[in-house]
Amino acid sequence: MNRLYHVPLSPFCRKVRLVLAEKRIEVELVEERYWEMQPDFMRRNPAGKVPVLKLDGRTLTESMAICEYVDDLYPDPSLMPQSAEGRYEVRRLVSWFDDKFHHDVTANLLYERVNRKLMKTGYPDSRAVKLGAQRIKYHLDYMAWLLDHRRWLAGDRMTLADFAAAAHLSSLDYISDVDWNRSDVVKDWYAKIKSRPAFRSILADQVPGFPPPAHYADLDF
Amino acid sequence: MNRLYHVPLSPFCRKVRLVLAEKRIEVELVEERYWEMQPDFMRRNPAGKVPVLKLDGRTLTESMAICEYVDDLYPDPSLMPQSAEGRYEVRRLVSWFDDKFHHDVTANLLYERVNRKLMKTGYPDSRAVKLGAQRIKYHLDYMAWLLDHRRWLAGDRMTLADFAAAAHLSSLDYISDVDWNRSDVVKDWYAKIKSRPAFRSILADQVPGFPPPAHYADLDF
Repeated sequence: MNRLYHVPLSPFCRKVRLVLAEKRIEVELVEERYWEMQPDFMRRNPAGKVPVLKLDGRTLTESMAICEYVDDLYPDPSLMPQSAEGRYEVRRLVSWFDDKFHHDVTANLLYERVNRKLMKTGYPDSRAVKLGAQRIKYHLDYMAWLLDHRRWLAGDRMTLADFAAAAHLSSLDYISDVDWNRSDVVKDWYAKIKSRPAFRSILADQVPGFPPPAHYADLDF
Repeated sequence: MNRLYHVPLSPFCRKVRLVLAEKRIEVELVEERYWEMQPDFMRRNPAGKVPVLKLDGRTLTESMAICEYVDDLYPDPSLMPQSAEGRYEVRRLVSWFDDKFHHDVTANLLYERVNRKLMKTGYPDSRAVKLGAQRIKYHLDYMAWLLDHRRWLAGDRMTLADFAAAAHLSSLDYISDVDWNRSDVVKDWYAKIKSRPAFRSILADQVPGFPPPAHYADLDF
């Protein structure tokens, strides 16, 4: 049985979950409180983080390496463009979200508001939360600028870049930290990706102590 | 003319420099003090970081996206394996070095000792430096474990994974923070990669205020 060790609101895990679901690869989801560094888990992944995917008997780590591998092995539907330029743009945008957006926004909002409480590392730093709330505006505007020119973030087809972005935004939407009124094109893009069957498992997530807002799972938000 | 905006000791820039040099793609190197956020530079790269590569008229950002693109366009010599499994392992290891090694070691040693002085953000945090000096041992041991089974880090051929690792280690070696006596196989691996013509420009780097130790450019270190 394939198995994904994850935490529900981790954008890196959500990216992998979306890719697996889009390709109809069934996995058992196992929640892993990686910050407790259980010996069993550390053996599976010496980097001590999630996601860790057991797929066809192999143990895989590092979310983007996993996504590209799964896309190589299960190319239907393909989530990477054929051209070198297209692939570059997808990888650039995945890095943009997983590195810059993550540092500017996800770390300041989600990690302060949720992870600190789950991991028992104190109260949210209000300066960080304020910074994150400010910086997400710039990122939504950048997405709007891209989507003014393109149907999907990296071009005319849905790719890993859309899943990377949707993974971060859906986690933040779970704690009501995305202002969907800021841009119509971004909202339309999210409505389109949110309504895919691959998104269902993510919309069903429930984190104890953090009930999602009503609009979170609503396809007509 | 192709041009790379970089800072000399940045491992992300060094990875790109090594890949370009290995493929004999000539670029003009332009030092970019990205932390000063000059408007011209921010226009070139809204992420506000290096490396930024101007190649054949295109402006490219995000080091791993750049490396894979260059490898796609200039496949001689190829730095990515043919098999999906091989490519996964290279990408996993590049993420390992650029994410985990970077966080554990490079940020604690190089950024504390060098970047703080260059960016005028205060004195090194001695706790961070101690932590980095401790954690590099674990990483060198992990490399030794890989190299006990393989000629190069990701398998039998030299790949992007070796350049990612060598980029971090060479930057740390510039400030004498690598104990080459810890493992013979790691030292042999570094001697092999260091002696490649692609490494020459990196061994000639000079950062004002930080003269490199004598062994840094010595192929017989």
